[in-house]
Amino acid sequence: MTATLDRLAAIVASRRAADPQASYVAKLFVKGRAKIAQKVGEEAVEAVIAAMQDDREGLIGESADLLFHLSVLWADAGITPDDIDAELARREGVSGIAEKAARKTATPGD
Amino acid sequence: MTATLDRLAAIVASRRAADPQASYVAKLFVKGRAKIAQKVGEEAVEAVIAAMQDDREGLIGESADLLFHLSVLWADAGITPDDIDAELARREGVSGIAEKAARKTATPGD
Amino acid sequence: MTATLDRLAAIVASRRAADPQASYVAKLFVKGRAKIAQKVGEEAVEAVIAAMQDDREGLIGESADLLFHLSVLWADAGITPDDIDAELARREGVSGIAEKAARKTATPGD
Amino acid sequence: MTATLDRLAAIVASRRAADPQASYVAKLFVKGRAKIAQKVGEEAVEAVIAAMQDDREGLIGESADLLFHLSVLWADAGITPDDIDAELARREGVSGIAEKAARKTATPGD
Repeated sequence: MTATLDRLAAIVASRRAADPQASYVAKLFVKGRAKIAQKVGEEAVEAVIAAMQDDREGLIGESADLLFHLSVLWADAGITPDDIDAELARREGVSGIAEKAARKTATPGD
Repeated sequence: MTATLDRLAAIVASRRAADPQASYVAKLFVKGRAKIAQKVGEEAVEAVIAAMQDDREGLIGESADLLFHLSVLWADAGITPDDIDAELARREGVSGIAEKAARKTATPGD
Repeated sequence: MTATLDRLAAIVASRRAADPQASYVAKLFVKGRAKIAQKVGEEAVEAVIAAMQDDREGLIGESADLLFHLSVLWADAGITPDDIDAELARREGVSGIAEKAARKTATPGD
Repeated sequence: MTATLDRLAAIVASRRAADPQASYVAKLFVKGRAKIAQKVGEEAVEAVIAAMQDDREGLIGESADLLFHLSVLWADAGITPDDIDAELARREGVSGIAEKAARKTATPGD
């Protein structure tokens, strides 16, 4: 199975060049950065509300929407899932060291 | 390489039982749903702002923060990356059919 | 001239009992708290984006939308503009004292 | 009593020129537009969460925070409460006409 974020990136890339009349993704790219960022913000708000309602199915759906629009935003900014992955790996390294230090010194933080 | 969202889920799970004094993740779970949801909303706002500033590195960093806190929220709600993946796959199926229909009928939407 | 927030509260109150078919406000109240809160979050995201685009007219428009939906949320929660005003006045008192202390001791914060 | 938004605008203006070491508002202006917009987004998220928790006192507090930071954002963009008021008045006019039309024709919308 291909990783989720890679599959989303591939879908976004394949639809980007489609007819904006026929593809929601192509239409988003035509509308541009501000509209794409707005959708990311709105889906995050909907995920927050589903979480506060303890609506598990709703949170799954809004999270899928959020990841989808985030993938469009990344593509628009020339960011790949590998860029995100590298940043998370970098933090894990830093965090792993910090957690070990925390265990030794009981200083909060990871 | 393990998929990004699976790796994040594993990190969150491993830290969840840690000492809240020593782990940011453990502390978040203790604070509870509202605090975790708040962090997701805040990181989304920061990602939106980085996107609007055309700050590619900033957007990578805020996106990593957003995925991380989203992973904590999913864990708190008993949601796994597989649940998100299944929802996205379900939509791809629906969407694939809709895109084909759109190509035939020129009706907008994917 | 009646104060802006009082006027908004009066408009919201007058439309609340209207036919949901004929009034956007009445329809929002029927949809309930989660939908009203969602609109507040969405309008805030749009205000943030207009601000980042340095779109003065856009920010005025989105701010008007935000205050309007915030007024609906307050009404739904039984909050009046006077409640907000009292909270702000309370803080001004606290803040006035803190600012004086800051001027004497050069401690940051207001 | 001076109207809430006018009083907030006066407070923001009076603190804008203060020492950033001694005033939170002065410090916000020094940090600039992106930081101010971020605070508006964050306070809106907190208001949404308080609303979803049905936390009336919390919603009053977060709403006061939101109006306060919105007033800073307006000042940063050269917007006065009168600009917001004029926009709301313009809509009331439009809306008043639309509501009358709706009552006659039973067409949804206000």
